[in-house]
Amino acid sequence: MRTARAVVDGSPRIVVKDADGVRVAPVDHPDDALQALESVASGRSADWQPIDLEGLELLAPVAGAGKIIAVGLNYVDHTAETGIAQPERPLTFAKYATSLTGPASDVVIPDHITQGVDFEAELALLIGRRCGGDTPATLEDVAAYTVANDVSARDVQFGDVQWTRGKSFDTFTPLGPWLVAADEFGDPSGHRIYAEVDGELLQEDDTAEMIFDVPTILAFVSDGVTLEPGDLVLTGTPAGAGGFRTPPRYLQHGQTVVVGVEGIGELRNRFVHRSRTAA
Amino acid sequence: MRTARAVVDGSPRIVVKDADGVRVAPVDHPDDALQALESVASGRSADWQPIDLEGLELLAPVAGAGKIIAVGLNYVDHTAETGIAQPERPLTFAKYATSLTGPASDVVIPDHITQGVDFEAELALLIGRRCGGDTPATLEDVAAYTVANDVSARDVQFGDVQWTRGKSFDTFTPLGPWLVAADEFGDPSGHRIYAEVDGELLQEDDTAEMIFDVPTILAFVSDGVTLEPGDLVLTGTPAGAGGFRTPPRYLQHGQTVVVGVEGIGELRNRFVHRSRTAA
Repeated sequence: MRTARAVVDGSPRIVVKDADGVRVAPVDHPDDALQALESVASGRSADWQPIDLEGLELLAPVAGAGKIIAVGLNYVDHTAETGIAQPERPLTFAKYATSLTGPASDVVIPDHITQGVDFEAELALLIGRRCGGDTPATLEDVAAYTVANDVSARDVQFGDVQWTRGKSFDTFTPLGPWLVAADEFGDPSGHRIYAEVDGELLQEDDTAEMIFDVPTILAFVSDGVTLEPGDLVLTGTPAGAGGFRTPPRYLQHGQTVVVGVEGIGELRNRFVHRSRTAA
Repeated sequence: MRTARAVVDGSPRIVVKDADGVRVAPVDHPDDALQALESVASGRSADWQPIDLEGLELLAPVAGAGKIIAVGLNYVDHTAETGIAQPERPLTFAKYATSLTGPASDVVIPDHITQGVDFEAELALLIGRRCGGDTPATLEDVAAYTVANDVSARDVQFGDVQWTRGKSFDTFTPLGPWLVAADEFGDPSGHRIYAEVDGELLQEDDTAEMIFDVPTILAFVSDGVTLEPGDLVLTGTPAGAGGFRTPPRYLQHGQTVVVGVEGIGELRNRFVHRSRTAA
């Protein structure tokens, strides 16, 4: 059972996919992924109209996400290539939810701010209910899994030292294409994760190679921090992103980055430069 | 013209204050500060019932904030006391909106995570409309001003290097008591800002002493980043917070921190420890 969002007749609509095929939610269905997962689970989607996604613009599968908590340095080989000591506990940072974009949308590089844009393949979790704070969140609190590209302006990220700004420009978090319900996705460990630039495979690993696995991440990020339905957690990237290569390989205008996680699907985003006067 | 939120008959309600006194919005008014400011500006609040706030629990004046963008190292004397070089551009980081709490609520220190909790007096801005991204945000996009205490677990903040987690535990962002409409607050420069711990004045400065003033901050944080109605921007803290003193003075169980900005009002939060088993 999986959901997505697409532009249908000019408006965002929920799309679902199960054994019976792909169907679109009625116009009056809330544009809310968690409610859509409930609609499918409860059988209320059984009479929704079939739809062919060919030619439709896909959107990020969540609208109006809450917070995005991201984990850095969470694959052994990636941590080694950064030259940073392996953290004793998860290293977390925030991305602004306004950076979300669709699984096939253009990622816009603000030329006047950065000349060092890079990709990061990540497994992402969608929190399904209020949890954490006093008691640690668990896998039971995860509604669904999806794929994220944690796009990063390396010059801004490391120039600021605080990573949020360099990873939060508009369109810097492609997400999707599907939200795969947690019970369908199963164990988040053991899935192939990869990234390609113009067809060249640059990242390839298995989610089993995370330093801190998903249950550990959930308990840690929710310790003293309430998680809300719609929050996203990004679980870190494997080795091989362009910025850590010698020499670094930053993304150029017109390049296409594919990011995939086995069992979910692929993001396929073209990167385009846009210049304007600096603020 | 100013708005707040209070618990009335067990539910969050919008409260407004103008020359005619303090009144409470009807039960069916949206729990939305921006709509409340519009209600007052348009005169729709003229027949709301008077209310006495004495004895009522005040809430953070915004419910369900979007992102919180905070600026670090933005007063000359504070930057000097940290020993960090003065930044050439604003240094920004994120706080999770789930850390918001009321202007007189307890701040809960998670003992199992931190032994170094500190306060920071800050002027905060509420964004009133979608702005930024392609064109810089300006003072015209600010709906209102309020007071924030940017509570910071210094050991976590500097241990992580990334500042977000140590500043985002639940209750770590007291906000309020009033949202003061931008036209009433006037020029955000030239307001006394201060913090007291158990009556002892530890921070005192003027918002005119910001390194980057509010218009500069707005243009910078919105450069490539869309701001949405309900987003908050925290503008940095003056010198004098406990963690940068010799020896450091971290907050102890039962201490009360008052944070104020001239023309808005004061936060008055008791800090309480709560122990539990680490995750």
